[in-house]
Amino acid sequence: MSTRLERELFRLLGARDVMRADSRGAQVYLADATESRGMQGRADAIVLPETPGQVAKVVAYAQTHDVPITTRGGGTGFAGGAVPDGGILLATERLGGVPKIDPERWLAEVPAATTTADLRRRAREEGLYYPPDPGAQEQSLIGGNIATNAGGPHTFKYGVTGRWVASLDIVLASGEQLTVGHEVKKDVSGYDLKSLLVGSEGTLGIITGARMHLIPAPEVQLPILARYPDTASGVAAIARVLTCAAIPAALEFLDAPTTDSDFTVLIDAEGGAEELKEALADGASSIEAPTDRHAINQLWRWRDGVSLQVTARHGGKVSEDITVPVTRLAEAIESTVEIGKRHGLEACSWGHAGDGNMHSTFMLDRNDEAQLHAAEDAAEELFAMALELGGSISGEHGIGLVKRAAAAQALDGQVQKLNRQIKDLLDPKGLLNPGKKLP
Amino acid sequence: MSTRLERELFRLLGARDVMRADSRGAQVYLADATESRGMQGRADAIVLPETPGQVAKVVAYAQTHDVPITTRGGGTGFAGGAVPDGGILLATERLGGVPKIDPERWLAEVPAATTTADLRRRAREEGLYYPPDPGAQEQSLIGGNIATNAGGPHTFKYGVTGRWVASLDIVLASGEQLTVGHEVKKDVSGYDLKSLLVGSEGTLGIITGARMHLIPAPEVQLPILARYPDTASGVAAIARVLTCAAIPAALEFLDAPTTDSDFTVLIDAEGGAEELKEALADGASSIEAPTDRHAINQLWRWRDGVSLQVTARHGGKVSEDITVPVTRLAEAIESTVEIGKRHGLEACSWGHAGDGNMHSTFMLDRNDEAQLHAAEDAAEELFAMALELGGSISGEHGIGLVKRAAAAQALDGQVQKLNRQIKDLLDPKGLLNPGKKLP
Repeated sequence: MSTRLERELFRLLGARDVMRADSRGAQVYLADATESRGMQGRADAIVLPETPGQVAKVVAYAQTHDVPITTRGGGTGFAGGAVPDGGILLATERLGGVPKIDPERWLAEVPAATTTADLRRRAREEGLYYPPDPGAQEQSLIGGNIATNAGGPHTFKYGVTGRWVASLDIVLASGEQLTVGHEVKKDVSGYDLKSLLVGSEGTLGIITGARMHLIPAPEVQLPILARYPDTASGVAAIARVLTCAAIPAALEFLDAPTTDSDFTVLIDAEGGAEELKEALADGASSIEAPTDRHAINQLWRWRDGVSLQVTARHGGKVSEDITVPVTRLAEAIESTVEIGKRHGLEACSWGHAGDGNMHSTFMLDRNDEAQLHAAEDAAEELFAMALELGGSISGEHGIGLVKRAAAAQALDGQVQKLNRQIKDLLDPKGLLNPGKKLP
Repeated sequence: MSTRLERELFRLLGARDVMRADSRGAQVYLADATESRGMQGRADAIVLPETPGQVAKVVAYAQTHDVPITTRGGGTGFAGGAVPDGGILLATERLGGVPKIDPERWLAEVPAATTTADLRRRAREEGLYYPPDPGAQEQSLIGGNIATNAGGPHTFKYGVTGRWVASLDIVLASGEQLTVGHEVKKDVSGYDLKSLLVGSEGTLGIITGARMHLIPAPEVQLPILARYPDTASGVAAIARVLTCAAIPAALEFLDAPTTDSDFTVLIDAEGGAEELKEALADGASSIEAPTDRHAINQLWRWRDGVSLQVTARHGGKVSEDITVPVTRLAEAIESTVEIGKRHGLEACSWGHAGDGNMHSTFMLDRNDEAQLHAAEDAAEELFAMALELGGSISGEHGIGLVKRAAAAQALDGQVQKLNRQIKDLLDPKGLLNPGKKLP
């Protein structure tokens, strides 16, 4: 039996764009990557609009009838930002189409449901480059990347998703559609509204499409992988790389518990490869610099797969994305393992060393309630450690559902007040992704 | 005789931080670069606070007594954003001190009154680089650069001021002091409040200090200057440069009326100099590539001096900063000259070709009322042309006082409404730089 809400949405959108919340296929829309820590949401209805106009209709309906809306992109988030707690789950995955590239203007017109990898591939076909490469780029959608301000290895040199946004098509809480930002590279004709939407996790408006900036593809990107006997020598190498004039495109690390072997530094050199190799050399037990396309692809596939491999170890994990000053990286890496130990959990970290942004992770069996609780406690200690070191509780995952308590600790009271005022201004009824992002 | 307002501010700040608005030295604080088009403001009092705490005191006083506050940085703006119309003129020039560089973290702690050039020099001393280089960098202050989101030649590759802001110390309309943003490179723990302040032209809060990101100084920057017999061949060369994988740091143009000689393209190569020279070659009447430090400095001093040289031609100018799609650059350059002709004014343009951001300029005698009026009319036509080509009315100068009518044309009604709501939220009494930025 469909609910009254489902029937009304059915009338609004048509049969094929509404999915019964109790149907077999619905489960996938009620969870994101926090499934690995046992999280599952619930919704009263699931809609899969195919056009921005349909999104606007649903939002206007929700506004009139006081129904909360949780927006979901590729469902690859680690903070539960897309996990609904009742109301409408709006999946953007049908807001698709082929991204259109304007090679002369270095510009892409991108529907919200374009996967990150598809945008990167389309750009490459035109000799252009879209740098952000978050971990699950074959699944993650540009709309979600923007809504979380996603990062990835190559954002070390090139900056996170928000830096590449020219303009956004959005649906406001009222159901109004508008475009914020401008497709030219420089525009100061109004306040920077688009940046307010970037990283807002569906709490200020719904992103239905975007114009993204691109750049000419770099002529060369050559990975160099160096292994070290311990954290101290690996982190020292990272510090030396940071003093090179040749900035690598990526500067990653994986600690020994992550690789189950050596502390590893992985960089992507766009020039100055010799200088960078030299910077990595001291204390390294091995250095590899594959030049063969196949080997290079394999290396990055291995790097992208780390998160899943770590999950597979015990069947689940709690993985956070703290950021610390690069000068405190070694401390944060060692503290992660120690915090895990105190809670009886195997811990590891890897991530974007150059940004001080690390995926501190506690491995667990997701069916073991005691371990799940221990991991949540460990995560709280992790956030406290990041703040103590002068860092942030989230570099790229966002606050979502799981980090609201930590955000209350991290953000100054006045800043929290301003955040709340912005939220109240753009979503007076609090219907857009309620219970997320704000402490 | 000092006014009551002056006496109260005197009591609040002390004698040396308040300047009589009718004193001889006051005039300089009542105008900015729009003086070249005959603009001069007026104030009831001028304050020159030395600490963020003093700024907060003045703002809290103004809030209680309903006194408008216009904030002024280096006074190099072209949009009249710092030209007061009564109330308090708050000059930030004493919020100084030496910028502190943290070389390991690629971070600078910068008081608002640091000049752009000083920050660039201090960074260089530590082997680091602060890319934005707006025209008047020896006079312009970082606080003003942030408040206008200033650009410059090297922001073609590196992005405008806002991209380099880590966190901002601000004083809100209420007089509250707070810090928005974070000094780590990645942080998504709240909404992007700092970007809301960037480019807000003193209408949402007052910037008293900042943490700015830096990067390692590029090993080499070699300018290449190419001259062309006409606009078409120069713009064709620009298009060829845009297809090179070697992205130059700067990609500038100066049209023939600007140089009083040839259409000129100036790039700054950080690599791939041969490839870039080749891209510039076709149709060029000459190519110069100085490698001597002295010659290089001279070349950039010449480029930086263009704006003043053009002013000197007839004693005044109306110079706007429209942005058009790079594919429409030739049309915009030619239209500028034609619009000038129709209004009996000599016109020229130069600027940031790679960003499609041009300084379209009408030369005039600033004492000639008829010419001033003609130039204002010409500027309106210029804005209409930019919008017609799919561009923006301001790439870097901002809206200030002089472009409010154009902004009303440029911005969609819903976007204007959102801008106004943001303003009302952060400055409910409308006392911060009233009559600026918003249409």
